[in-house]
Amino acid sequence: MHSKFEILRLLSYRMCLNRLKNIGFEYVFSYYLGEEVDVSPEQIRRDLASFGIRGKKKSGYHIEQLILDIEKILGNEGRQFVIIVGMGNIGNALIDNDDFKRNNIDIIAGFDIDPVKLKRKYQIPVFPNNKLEEFIHSNNIKTAVLAVPALSAQEVCNNLVSYGIRGILNFAPVNLKVEDNIVLNNVNLCSELTSVIYLANHS
Amino acid sequence: MHSKFEILRLLSYRMCLNRLKNIGFEYVFSYYLGEEVDVSPEQIRRDLASFGIRGKKKSGYHIEQLILDIEKILGNEGRQFVIIVGMGNIGNALIDNDDFKRNNIDIIAGFDIDPVKLKRKYQIPVFPNNKLEEFIHSNNIKTAVLAVPALSAQEVCNNLVSYGIRGILNFAPVNLKVEDNIVLNNVNLCSELTSVIYLANHS
Repeated sequence: MHSKFEILRLLSYRMCLNRLKNIGFEYVFSYYLGEEVDVSPEQIRRDLASFGIRGKKKSGYHIEQLILDIEKILGNEGRQFVIIVGMGNIGNALIDNDDFKRNNIDIIAGFDIDPVKLKRKYQIPVFPNNKLEEFIHSNNIKTAVLAVPALSAQEVCNNLVSYGIRGILNFAPVNLKVEDNIVLNNVNLCSELTSVIYLANHS
Repeated sequence: MHSKFEILRLLSYRMCLNRLKNIGFEYVFSYYLGEEVDVSPEQIRRDLASFGIRGKKKSGYHIEQLILDIEKILGNEGRQFVIIVGMGNIGNALIDNDDFKRNNIDIIAGFDIDPVKLKRKYQIPVFPNNKLEEFIHSNNIKTAVLAVPALSAQEVCNNLVSYGIRGILNFAPVNLKVEDNIVLNNVNLCSELTSVIYLANHS
């Protein structure tokens, strides 16, 4: 079982490798890749070896092959269908993310409890929350983005899990409780910005 | 000098402490707080001690005092003014974030190169990018949110730094290069979601 941090590093390697490939590089050493993505070369070699990928002492990693290997690890499940619960600002911003589309991620529906939001025009179908269970079951959805207000986040999270959701990307600024077998990834934008402000003021 | 991860953990402790306080707790042990925020009790004690905060063996940390201590560490610089460059979906979502306002963060202006976006009505003033230098200087802005397309991100980033920006929260899916004295925090939403999908499929 790999950790969230390993997967995030793998994604960051891929992003960098694509750039190196586009500017004409053919091979890359772990120390050069490490400089680019701000990870130690030892960590890079360990991460890749944990997926069975090894570079050559003399030439390093073959970039195109390494990209294919990473794609194979991350993307061999094909198109991924994801729903968004909470069609506020963040929810809205995510339905139109080109980066998702390029990476085989399809946000196929949104959900909200606000009747006003349900009447608006979106690029994806948006349903009331009481349609969640049926939708998740009939489309076999495993991953949801949670973008509801903090106060209702735990309740909605519990419902999603009981309907069969296995992975949640949570934008609500709360410590959600989930069972160990559920994947929970919190993105707290306010904390991220606060940390930048603090560190910039103290650097 | 503290790291981004220390500050993010401190913010996560504060969020949890506020919740514990609201439901009537007066004291908390590091192991209980650790369970709540998914950090080891040793790490919590080390983090807090690095800011000179120590709990008591018998009763743990006094919650209200600990919140005040953390506020003092993170918030003693008062109101923080931040700009957003790139008024696409993400930029737009952030200007209306209540969590920022509650945390003394004021997004005071947006910038974009697209004349169409400049004509729209926003809750904050939005200027063309060629006003960045003047605005940053005259308002002594140190922190910027970068929400421009990947292709122009490095160029805009270089400009921001040359105009005096010290901290950048970057949403563009690229490995930006900055000098060591610049604080750069990358939030790659596609990577975050991809990691949830991968882990949920393999859990």
